[in-house]
Amino acid sequence: MPDPGPGQFLVKSRWLSVDPYMRGRMSPSSNYTKGVGIGEVMQGGGVGEVVASSHPAWKIGDVAESMSVGWQEWSVLTPDIFGPAGVNKIDPKLAPIESSLSWLGMPGVTAYFGLLEVGRPRPGDTVVVSAAAGAVGQLVGQIAKLAGCRAVAIAGDDGKLRWCREIGFDATINYKSSVDLVAAVKSACPQGVDIFFDNTAGPIHDAVMRNLSIGARVVICGRIALAGQFGKPDIGERFTGQLIVTRASIHGFLAFDWWPRRDEALRRLSAWQREKKIRFKEDVLNGIECVPEAFLRLLEGKNFGKQLVKLG
Amino acid sequence: MPDPGPGQFLVKSRWLSVDPYMRGRMSPSSNYTKGVGIGEVMQGGGVGEVVASSHPAWKIGDVAESMSVGWQEWSVLTPDIFGPAGVNKIDPKLAPIESSLSWLGMPGVTAYFGLLEVGRPRPGDTVVVSAAAGAVGQLVGQIAKLAGCRAVAIAGDDGKLRWCREIGFDATINYKSSVDLVAAVKSACPQGVDIFFDNTAGPIHDAVMRNLSIGARVVICGRIALAGQFGKPDIGERFTGQLIVTRASIHGFLAFDWWPRRDEALRRLSAWQREKKIRFKEDVLNGIECVPEAFLRLLEGKNFGKQLVKLG
Repeated sequence: MPDPGPGQFLVKSRWLSVDPYMRGRMSPSSNYTKGVGIGEVMQGGGVGEVVASSHPAWKIGDVAESMSVGWQEWSVLTPDIFGPAGVNKIDPKLAPIESSLSWLGMPGVTAYFGLLEVGRPRPGDTVVVSAAAGAVGQLVGQIAKLAGCRAVAIAGDDGKLRWCREIGFDATINYKSSVDLVAAVKSACPQGVDIFFDNTAGPIHDAVMRNLSIGARVVICGRIALAGQFGKPDIGERFTGQLIVTRASIHGFLAFDWWPRRDEALRRLSAWQREKKIRFKEDVLNGIECVPEAFLRLLEGKNFGKQLVKLG
Repeated sequence: MPDPGPGQFLVKSRWLSVDPYMRGRMSPSSNYTKGVGIGEVMQGGGVGEVVASSHPAWKIGDVAESMSVGWQEWSVLTPDIFGPAGVNKIDPKLAPIESSLSWLGMPGVTAYFGLLEVGRPRPGDTVVVSAAAGAVGQLVGQIAKLAGCRAVAIAGDDGKLRWCREIGFDATINYKSSVDLVAAVKSACPQGVDIFFDNTAGPIHDAVMRNLSIGARVVICGRIALAGQFGKPDIGERFTGQLIVTRASIHGFLAFDWWPRRDEALRRLSAWQREKKIRFKEDVLNGIECVPEAFLRLLEGKNFGKQLVKLG
């Protein structure tokens, strides 16, 4: 157990998050941030209690959430860092503390800005979401409904798609059981796809791209379907013809760019949750020894809702 | 020779335009507009003199420019149509009448809005232009310089690239003689590519995509490198990883969407030309029998400047 230095504190992890972005951190620095080196602690978000503090603003018993926790039971945090690596004080009366890793944390911020600022929904738009029952996807669909859009869920499991219907998605597509995915998207989106919020890439991406409407926006949020071929190029149709004909646009997106406006997203998400306008499903494993399993479940699409690990 | 009906007039073509978009019109209606059927006149822009008129606002000797002229010596035009198929009265004192098919016409409007509204240049941006000596490319480079950007030309001929230097491009890349095109782009754009104005698609597209800066904008204006495989999908790397890491965006673009603001572009282009801030090279063949040859020259990149055909 490490000792906190001046201006630092020691946290006992209560919940750890596993997220698709972690696959990128497991490789050398070819990604948008430095990867994890051999022998280093795997990076990741977590939330827990302060058990020892050398920082005047943090007391024992305070709850701290940070992307700097990592896959470990104890961590020393330095709160006075601005940005995604910083530390947030969590009010346990506002919501269960693990929410700070899910709908009231990074996945929430991702869904909020990715849809509202990058996708720019208009009332009446058809919004297609891949990995729709995932941490980000669930929220994108519900925020799309709040914005007056029609929301269409794509996932690989009928149970997940039933949940998507329950939380307000208007139509669902099971990509595993669809014989012709292009036709399935067309049938679910007869007016075309105005916003495609893509968490997967791969064959789902291709099928939706063939159904874009005039002026469509494609938000590239994740590419979990390519996790197994990480570092290899994604070869396929480029759709430049469709892009010209539809005047559509494809936008790469990183939630961390929106960190300065994080509080705006959390305030809205919190209000929507209090007003029962958004609901959220979490998938919990128990014990730090389950973190690698939880991560693999995520990459394989076996999680049902935001994947979390609860520590004893 | 056809007779003009009421509200119409007859035009004797003086100049015809050939443009890459025509390849799309030569196929069935899979494109953004109806294609040309067997036995129909090939669509295309032209400019000529009114030789007979049944329209009160058009007199014999007036000069008319229209995308509705087609590949023919005589055409009957209906001027009271708004939009790209309409007819524009040309002032021969303002510029040579053939300019209405080049820098003071559709290619000018394309370059102006494609760069300024879709690419959104900021002073200091590095703007890479493919087919840089072509009708649109020449103008994009010069407008980029007026916007305070650094302009980099890509073309397949050293003579064309010398011209690009003459009109103000800061650096040039000969894609045919570059052994490693990715490295050539990197060397010409050490800070990365902020705007990629792509007229070609294909291997040039790929090399520039590997050099995007954070927040880059890619304007898909044309894809002449794929003309030989028209109707077939463009297979290659999708660059979704680069898009996420760089938060870049790819925008399909059609100049006709900007037709309501066409006069704005022409007024600025005209002023810049009067102030000797833009220059423009045209490549002229003589005689209507040369139109197919002119079109093939264009598809093969053999034209040097905007390809026009002058009629006797």
